[in-house]
Amino acid sequence: MSRPTSSDREPAPAGPPDGPPDVPHRLAAQIGFIVEVDRLKTVLRRSPLIAAARRENDAEHSWHLALMVTVLAEYSDTPLDVGRTTQLVLLHDLVEIYAGDTFLYDAAAAADQQVREQAAADRLFALLPADQAARFRARWDEFEARRTPEARFAKAMDRLQPLLANFYNQGGTWATPGITSAVERDHMAVIGDASTPLWDYAQQLIEHATDRGWIAAGQTP
Amino acid sequence: MSRPTSSDREPAPAGPPDGPPDVPHRLAAQIGFIVEVDRLKTVLRRSPLIAAARRENDAEHSWHLALMVTVLAEYSDTPLDVGRTTQLVLLHDLVEIYAGDTFLYDAAAAADQQVREQAAADRLFALLPADQAARFRARWDEFEARRTPEARFAKAMDRLQPLLANFYNQGGTWATPGITSAVERDHMAVIGDASTPLWDYAQQLIEHATDRGWIAAGQTP
Repeated sequence: MSRPTSSDREPAPAGPPDGPPDVPHRLAAQIGFIVEVDRLKTVLRRSPLIAAARRENDAEHSWHLALMVTVLAEYSDTPLDVGRTTQLVLLHDLVEIYAGDTFLYDAAAAADQQVREQAAADRLFALLPADQAARFRARWDEFEARRTPEARFAKAMDRLQPLLANFYNQGGTWATPGITSAVERDHMAVIGDASTPLWDYAQQLIEHATDRGWIAAGQTP
Repeated sequence: MSRPTSSDREPAPAGPPDGPPDVPHRLAAQIGFIVEVDRLKTVLRRSPLIAAARRENDAEHSWHLALMVTVLAEYSDTPLDVGRTTQLVLLHDLVEIYAGDTFLYDAAAAADQQVREQAAADRLFALLPADQAARFRARWDEFEARRTPEARFAKAMDRLQPLLANFYNQGGTWATPGITSAVERDHMAVIGDASTPLWDYAQQLIEHATDRGWIAAGQTP
């Protein structure tokens, strides 16, 4: 198995360059992808865990979203293909292995986020055999476009999960300067594109957190 | 939302005890479960990451298995329901939130593992509404029983992933006293219950690692 070469600034992969010599080319490519995506466990998000005092990484986050899809799918306003929704959340952050995590409230980083992430998708999915690369890319494009019920629900989970993390940390990233209840409400509004009851719930969380002083009261700038 | 009470030795949950007051009982229970399972991110395995010098946690591990199912399902000797197989790996380690991780090579801990994990499953899944608790429990029982093609493939991923981690760390937990290539081959043999090509590949990994001195050569005791 040969590792992808890279002239970028990422650290070299920790593993040795070669696997066993007699592995079929297709399987070797698939294993190369599986080894490479281990790096998602090293991409830190801003959001804190609920269960421990440290930041969450993208792999943990993606697992949590997948479990949330299973538990909360019944609240989608449109019937869901739960399997495809699960796939969307499992792979939605893979591009951050090369593009890094873009903080929801960082407008400057958001400006070139799409360009960076498209380039990362081109590079990462190319590790897979062509048929699987096309399937992963189509799923990631689906998540990003947010035009299917599955993509809208996946995005809703991607917003609701850090909202829960902030709430159960009595603050979390809400302490970021400039974040007010109105700003947070705007960021979370995509939950309402997927689920009326979960959007009702999210608004209650924001109101409750504002009442308790965990998020600054305020208007949209 | 009320948190589960516990007289056990686990640390108290980090979050505050109450959510917003007007959440429907069913949704409050589901959110309680979602908040509780955040703890899977704090259950450390013995296995190292490939991409960084630290131990892996159960949530990262479960995410990795889910992605492996998507990429490698074509190698199952029996056609798979990929969605159900994915569900099995996403939830297979949840009981370790209360029962802890049992090291594959720890025979003493393995002796009461089943009793501890059954009690943990009773406790954890009871946080969910009854219909979902029954569905999660049935899936976990399916994984443990290993009688369906989906459960056998899920178990194969659960073995192959740390095998890859050890291989790409040029040792990892293979440095544990008493581990030899023959012992490792025995532990990995369940891969062959699910997939002939992946079992061929796993044996090549073990042979290659033995040839390079990353695992001690030796016979089954």
